Amino acid sequence: MQGRAPAAGARDIERYAGLFASRTRVMTSSVMRDLMAITERPEVISLAGGLPDTSTFPAETMAAVMARVAAGSSSRALQYGPTEGMASTREAIAGLVGADVDPADVIVTTGGQQVIDLVCKTLLDPGDVVIAEGPTYPGAVPTLSSYQADVVQIGMDADGMLVDELEETLERLAREGRRPKFVYTVPTFQNPAGVTLSLPRRVRLIELARRHELVVLEDDPYGALRFEGEPLPTLLELDGGQFVIHAGTFSKILSPGVRLGWAIAPRPLLEKLNLGAQAATLCPSSLAQLFVTAYLDGGHHPRYLDELRGLYRGRRDAMLEALAAELPAEASWTRPQGGLFVWATLPEQLDTTDLLALALRNDVAFVPGRAAYLDGRGASSMRLNFSGQAEAEIREGVRRIGAIVREQLDLYGAITGRPAASAGQRGAGEGEPRTDLADVLALPRRAARGERRNAGR
Amino acid sequence: MQGRAPAAGARDIERYAGLFASRTRVMTSSVMRDLMAITERPEVISLAGGLPDTSTFPAETMAAVMARVAAGSSSRALQYGPTEGMASTREAIAGLVGADVDPADVIVTTGGQQVIDLVCKTLLDPGDVVIAEGPTYPGAVPTLSSYQADVVQIGMDADGMLVDELEETLERLAREGRRPKFVYTVPTFQNPAGVTLSLPRRVRLIELARRHELVVLEDDPYGALRFEGEPLPTLLELDGGQFVIHAGTFSKILSPGVRLGWAIAPRPLLEKLNLGAQAATLCPSSLAQLFVTAYLDGGHHPRYLDELRGLYRGRRDAMLEALAAELPAEASWTRPQGGLFVWATLPEQLDTTDLLALALRNDVAFVPGRAAYLDGRGASSMRLNFSGQAEAEIREGVRRIGAIVREQLDLYGAITGRPAASAGQRGAGEGEPRTDLADVLALPRRAARGERRNAGR
Repeated sequence: MQGRAPAAGARDIERYAGLFASRTRVMTSSVMRDLMAITERPEVISLAGGLPDTSTFPAETMAAVMARVAAGSSSRALQYGPTEGMASTREAIAGLVGADVDPADVIVTTGGQQVIDLVCKTLLDPGDVVIAEGPTYPGAVPTLSSYQADVVQIGMDADGMLVDELEETLERLAREGRRPKFVYTVPTFQNPAGVTLSLPRRVRLIELARRHELVVLEDDPYGALRFEGEPLPTLLELDGGQFVIHAGTFSKILSPGVRLGWAIAPRPLLEKLNLGAQAATLCPSSLAQLFVTAYLDGGHHPRYLDELRGLYRGRRDAMLEALAAELPAEASWTRPQGGLFVWATLPEQLDTTDLLALALRNDVAFVPGRAAYLDGRGASSMRLNFSGQAEAEIREGVRRIGAIVREQLDLYGAITGRPAASAGQRGAGEGEPRTDLADVLALPRRAARGERRNAGR
Repeated sequence: MQGRAPAAGARDIERYAGLFASRTRVMTSSVMRDLMAITERPEVISLAGGLPDTSTFPAETMAAVMARVAAGSSSRALQYGPTEGMASTREAIAGLVGADVDPADVIVTTGGQQVIDLVCKTLLDPGDVVIAEGPTYPGAVPTLSSYQADVVQIGMDADGMLVDELEETLERLAREGRRPKFVYTVPTFQNPAGVTLSLPRRVRLIELARRHELVVLEDDPYGALRFEGEPLPTLLELDGGQFVIHAGTFSKILSPGVRLGWAIAPRPLLEKLNLGAQAATLCPSSLAQLFVTAYLDGGHHPRYLDELRGLYRGRRDAMLEALAAELPAEASWTRPQGGLFVWATLPEQLDTTDLLALALRNDVAFVPGRAAYLDGRGASSMRLNFSGQAEAEIREGVRRIGAIVREQLDLYGAITGRPAASAGQRGAGEGEPRTDLADVLALPRRAARGERRNAGR
């Protein structure tokens, strides 16, 4: 077995330093990806990943579907395919997303991640403004950084992005003569916050997009994983194909290992995305496309999706119960109606990046909140995943986190002479009302303007 | 069945025009990819693609290998993996490339194409100089364009890149204060020229790389497909891990449909490539990696590779015989010792881009030579693929091309009053010696300097 490669030495890096593109100065690793390596130790309970539980997929189904692909189309599965994806896969995706979707408006990509990359490639020059939620998907942070975007993050509450704040921001940017290139949003079961954009806000977001001629990248990996409540129309449905690029993926509803996602977009945008994909990866995997198409054709999908929803609902419940039992009263967290993540916010004197080091020593992991911001905010928050671990592990993982949190609060109290219980009164004196409901979102407020630029991490 | 999407109208494009990144102005589609759509008609004999013959891969082997993956590791096959690739796949690749390769120096990518993209992402700012062969891999042209590279193409002869010309170019660039970021080369069975860089030139290329502290991207998709002659050391072997990034792929030795390639590079470069891959696609497909690893473990590979070599050798011979029989004496073409392509150059009054329209009407296709240049050169040349068609189709395809060529030469002779036979005396008066050996390379000379810039195709 090969060990992990040692990091490059300073002298080595110097040799090539003059060759690197300027974008590499702001390219960073995603915290989740780094954590993946650390949390490979089997004794670690990782609540850090965004991993679906692929162990629930029956090996026999996989074998049967692949046998069908091998028997019927082995030569095609092994061959190149069209850049935009195979016709049968595009049709299957259109059917999955909704009756109104024209397969000609769909391109198949190498995972949902590639859609984010291609939208950046198509729309962003260095320094261009992108609007995102605060917190935003931690995996989008390195992508936005690699295109040297100036990301403005808009606050959220339990109903998703604060559209009032978005409107003010758009007006301010217009006054400054800066046109944002796109709004990046995960409106449904947001990663990392777990909240869902309400219908009235969806409608207003689309109105704003039209008024400001603004592309909206709707990243929707989790929409099909709703445990409760009524489904809401997607931004794609509300927009009707004018300004929304809808990104989807098989990662959370079937398999991330197939690396297949898709984009549905207005034709002129779609053509540029396709050009970008061609230059980057030529085409999505034919093997994976035929596997997914055969799987969907086989009629397995609705049942498997039901099974996943039931499984993840139980795990979410286990997590919410454990959080209520283990975290101090001053902490707050979201209560997602679907998806994979809970966002928890601790008393502000705690820094979750520091806490993570202690957590790893106690064999538990989470994503520190800073990974979801481009400006260093999120220091007292954390993203907790409930899809990748069994209920018992979730309870034990949260218990370990709770123990560390209490220990640190006690330590803080002992040092400052203030009782730990008062630690939660963050926000007092800031002129911001503080909600006391632990299951309602309490996200960090936006930083002052000067702090909001891409800090080059 | 869904038809092809209509192209976006001018008014549609206008709506989004202000949003597009400046790089999109120079982003173009690869001719091969466009041709793929046209040549899907079953009656077309396409010599345009770069497709391996995947129909030779036994469906039973595929079914057996996939059954093994499903039984032993279905959960891992469906899950995310490390960005740099699974340890077992990196080991298998290291074993395939050579005994000296440390798996820690290997990253697995989404096809060999992604290596080109990631190297550009890591090294290129807009306007940076890249050195490539002239002609170069047509699929690299859109990638280099999308990073707004200033590509300087170096001429070739039957022994590959003219290293004297490279040296002069490097010295000229140094005088101009412009440091090229990397040399992109396909040294073995070059795409599209089919020629192989000789050993003395390999040694000199590495010397030049060291003297000028220049990264060399060695793209080696075809090295294992040698039909005759002695294997040469790769640039990676000659360099010993200082300046060479070695790109490989499973596309031509097993399957492009798995979309798996690799890069072997000095550690500081490898780390940047890995960061780029993380932002772009998160990780390569686990399903595909386990499929390939199980296939290699099964011991099928050496036999299959032998079979491919025998098959393609026969097809190359069929193509060379057909070219000798069908093309006029003034034409010349290369005689590859391996790989997938022959590069043919017609009398200079013929433009292969125009010829292609006629060819498609006669149900035959090739890649016009201009697709292999960034400056409009290559007008009278064409790339012919011999791996994707059976021998009888190759003969018939070349016969159709030959008929069109003769017809056009006759037409040219009738219009100008010059007999067609004199058409081949291109080069006379240019002060360049013209070789009369049809099986020795006669590539177009370099254009004057002012023409050499990325023309924005």
